Amino acid sequence: MSGVEAFDAVDLIRAKRDGHELETAEIDWLVDAYTRGYVADEQMSAMTMAIFLNGMARREIRDLTMAMIASGERMDFSGLGKATTDKHSTGGVGDKITLPLMPLVASFGVAVPQLSGRGLGHTGGTLDKLESIPGWRADLTNDEMFAQLRDVGGVICAAGSGLAPADKKLYALRDITGTVEAIPLIASSIMSKKIAEGTGALVLDVKFGSGAFLQDIERSRELARTMVELGEDAGVATSALITNMNVPLGLTIGNANEVRESIEVLAGGGPADVRELTIALAQEMLELAGVRDADVAAALDDGRAMDSWRAFVIAQGGDPDAAMPVARETHTVVADRDGVLVEQSALPFGIAAWRLGAGRARKEDPVHHAAGIDLHAKPGDTVRKGEPLFTLLADEPARFARALDAVEGAYRIGDAGEQVADGGPLIADRIGR
Amino acid sequence: MSGVEAFDAVDLIRAKRDGHELETAEIDWLVDAYTRGYVADEQMSAMTMAIFLNGMARREIRDLTMAMIASGERMDFSGLGKATTDKHSTGGVGDKITLPLMPLVASFGVAVPQLSGRGLGHTGGTLDKLESIPGWRADLTNDEMFAQLRDVGGVICAAGSGLAPADKKLYALRDITGTVEAIPLIASSIMSKKIAEGTGALVLDVKFGSGAFLQDIERSRELARTMVELGEDAGVATSALITNMNVPLGLTIGNANEVRESIEVLAGGGPADVRELTIALAQEMLELAGVRDADVAAALDDGRAMDSWRAFVIAQGGDPDAAMPVARETHTVVADRDGVLVEQSALPFGIAAWRLGAGRARKEDPVHHAAGIDLHAKPGDTVRKGEPLFTLLADEPARFARALDAVEGAYRIGDAGEQVADGGPLIADRIGR
Repeated sequence: MSGVEAFDAVDLIRAKRDGHELETAEIDWLVDAYTRGYVADEQMSAMTMAIFLNGMARREIRDLTMAMIASGERMDFSGLGKATTDKHSTGGVGDKITLPLMPLVASFGVAVPQLSGRGLGHTGGTLDKLESIPGWRADLTNDEMFAQLRDVGGVICAAGSGLAPADKKLYALRDITGTVEAIPLIASSIMSKKIAEGTGALVLDVKFGSGAFLQDIERSRELARTMVELGEDAGVATSALITNMNVPLGLTIGNANEVRESIEVLAGGGPADVRELTIALAQEMLELAGVRDADVAAALDDGRAMDSWRAFVIAQGGDPDAAMPVARETHTVVADRDGVLVEQSALPFGIAAWRLGAGRARKEDPVHHAAGIDLHAKPGDTVRKGEPLFTLLADEPARFARALDAVEGAYRIGDAGEQVADGGPLIADRIGR
Repeated sequence: MSGVEAFDAVDLIRAKRDGHELETAEIDWLVDAYTRGYVADEQMSAMTMAIFLNGMARREIRDLTMAMIASGERMDFSGLGKATTDKHSTGGVGDKITLPLMPLVASFGVAVPQLSGRGLGHTGGTLDKLESIPGWRADLTNDEMFAQLRDVGGVICAAGSGLAPADKKLYALRDITGTVEAIPLIASSIMSKKIAEGTGALVLDVKFGSGAFLQDIERSRELARTMVELGEDAGVATSALITNMNVPLGLTIGNANEVRESIEVLAGGGPADVRELTIALAQEMLELAGVRDADVAAALDDGRAMDSWRAFVIAQGGDPDAAMPVARETHTVVADRDGVLVEQSALPFGIAAWRLGAGRARKEDPVHHAAGIDLHAKPGDTVRKGEPLFTLLADEPARFARALDAVEGAYRIGDAGEQVADGGPLIADRIGR
C-alpha cells in the first residue's frame, strides 16, 4: 500500500449504513486495515452495528469470512494421510459433547483437529473442562498437534493467535458493543476459524432455546444454513444439526463434573441425552469424512472410544486415572412435594453454575474446576418430597446465595401427566447435503 | 456513584439496537458515563449507529439534549437587562449571513450572543471568515462576552470547551464513524449548545439542496421541526427557515472575500440573495425577541447596521478599516459561448474553494484567508463568450488544477429561456409558531 489506503472507512460505514452491499475489495481492505489498526475500533463497531441492523448478502459474508482467514495462517493437514473431521457447537449449558465425541470419532481412524476456546459467561469452555484433569495442557505447538493427529488421531487444543487474528479482535469488540448476535458476524467468526484450522469436514451443532445464544429455532436454522454454505463454498464438507438447549445437557454443569459424566458416556453409560447427541454427531462427522455406516454406539460400548480418550489425555500430559478436583462445599436442594419435574430451564442453571465459579465473567479470571451443579433429576422424572433435585458445588460457600437466586423459579414440580416444558426433541433438524 | 454504575452500556446498546426506547435515567447515565470515559468510544459509536438506524422518540431526543447540556456549564444572560436572540445555520457554501445579520439585529437594541465554530470540509466557518480581519480575535472570556453584549450588543466568539462537552466528544466520534446525518443526533448536538449558550430566542437556518449536508427538503423540515420542539421545550423561543442551498449564497466563497461581500450588504448593497436572507432572518430574530415590525431593510440602508458592525469588530480587537488579505494567485474561467448561466452547483464550488485553501481537511490545519472563489455570474444571468464566469483565488498556484477538477460539469451555459437549475426560491418554508 506504501502509505496510500485503497478506501476510506467512513465511506464503507456509510455504504453499509445506507443498506448497500460492500464490494469484495472493500471487505478485504476493511478487515486488513482493521487488523493493522488503521481502521479504529470505534469505526469497526459502527460498521458491525450497521451489519447487525442491515444484514449482509451471502457473497458479502463469504468475503468477510475469507478476509478473516487471510488475516492469519491457514493450517493444512493434507500431509497427514487420513481424513480430518471436526465439530463446532454454538454453546450451551452442560454441553460437554466434545469430550466423548472427539475420542469416539478418532477411534474410527480419522483425525479430529479440534481447536477450541475457553468459556465466557454462562456457556462453558471445552478447554476449561479438560483442564480439570491433572496435568492436561491445552497449549500445543503446530508440530505437536500434527504429530498427535497422526499418532493418536484426536487433539483438543487452544486455537493459536495465528488463526484468523482479525476475528479475535473483532469478537472482543462485538462483545462490548452489543453486536454479538448478528448472523453474518457469528457465521463468519465461527467459519473463519474452522476453515483456517484446515479440517476437511465439519459438523455444526447449532443450539436453540433458552440456554442458547439464539433462542429462536428459525434464527438457528438461518445461522446453520449460512455456515453450511460458507463451509461448502470453501471446500469443507459441512452439515449442521439443530439441537434443543431449553434444558441442560446431561446431569452435570461445570468442569470436573462434566469430565466425569463424559467418561461415563465413553464407558457406554451416561445420561441418555448426552449419549444420543454424541452418537448423532459422531455419525455425521464420520459420514462427511467418508466413513459410511460406522457403528458408533458399539465403539462406546466395547471400550474403543475409552481407549482413544485415554490415549488423547496422556498425549496432552494428563493422567486419565488421577483423582479429579472435588468441591469444598455443597448445597443440595430437595423436592418440596411429590410429583414430576416438569421444568428445568437451561439459562438460569447455566448462570447459577457460572456464579458458583464454574465460568468466568472476564477473560482473565480463573475458573474453579470443581464448581458447578449436579442435577439429580431431569424434566419428566418422577420425584418424591425430600429427594434431592440438584446439588450446588462451590469452593466458597458465599457463592450459594446468588446461585440460588438465579435458579429461583427455573424448575417446577408438577402433577403426573402434566406437559413437560422441555421444548421438544433433542435433535430438531439437520441441514446439509 | 461511588464506583457502582447504574446501568450497563451493552444493555443500553442492545435495547436501542432492538428498537426500544431508552429511559430518561438511562440516557442521563449514558451521556454522563461517556463524558467521564466509563463508556468507551467503541460502545458509543455502536449506540450512535443504532440511533441512526432505529431513530429516537421526541422524548428521547429531549432527554439526550438535556443530558448534553448538563454535561457542562450553562450560560445565563438574564442579568443583561435586554433580550437575547441568536441564529444557527446548518451550513452551506458561501454562507456568510451571520456577518451582516448579527450587527443588523444588534442595531435594534437586542443582544446577540453568537457562539460559533470553525469550518471543516466544504462548508466554511464563521470564525475563519472573521479572522481575515487584521487583529480580530475569537477567544473571549465569559466576562468579556457579557460586557460586550451589554455595551455593543453583538458578539461572535468561539464556543468554550465548558459548553456541552459531551456533545463535543460525541461529534468528533460521529465524524469518523459515519453517523453525522442522524436527525436525533444533529438536533441534540446543535440545540444542546444553543440552549446552554443561554439565548432567549433562536432562529434556525436549515439548508437543503446539493450544498447542504441534508440534501432532501423533507429531511430538512424534519430536522427543523425537531429542533424547534427542543427549543420550545427548553423555554427558548425558536423558529426555523428552510432555505435553498443548491447554488452558492452570494458571489463569494472563501473567507476574506466573504467578509468583503458582507460589508457590501451592511452598506445597503451586496447580492440580492444575501440581502434577502439577512433581512428575513433578522426579522425572525427580532420578532422572537419581542421587537415587532422592525424595518430591518432601513437599518441596512441608513448605516445603523454598519455602525453596529464597526463597533463589534473594534470590540474584538479588529480594525474595520484595515486592508484585507489578497490572494497571491488568481485563475479566471470565462464563458465559452453566449447564453444564460443555467447551473452553478453549490457542492462542487464549495469543494473547489476548500481545495484552494479556504477550508481545512483536518481540524488542526490552518486556513488561507485570501483563498476562495469570486463568482461573476449567478444562475439566470446572461453571459457572453469570453466574459469571466468565476475567479479562483489561492496563495499556491498548484492548487488550481484540483479546484478546476471539482467544478468540472458543475456549471453550464444554456440558451435563453431554458429552465434554470437553482432548486426554486431561496426561502422555501418557515417552521415555528
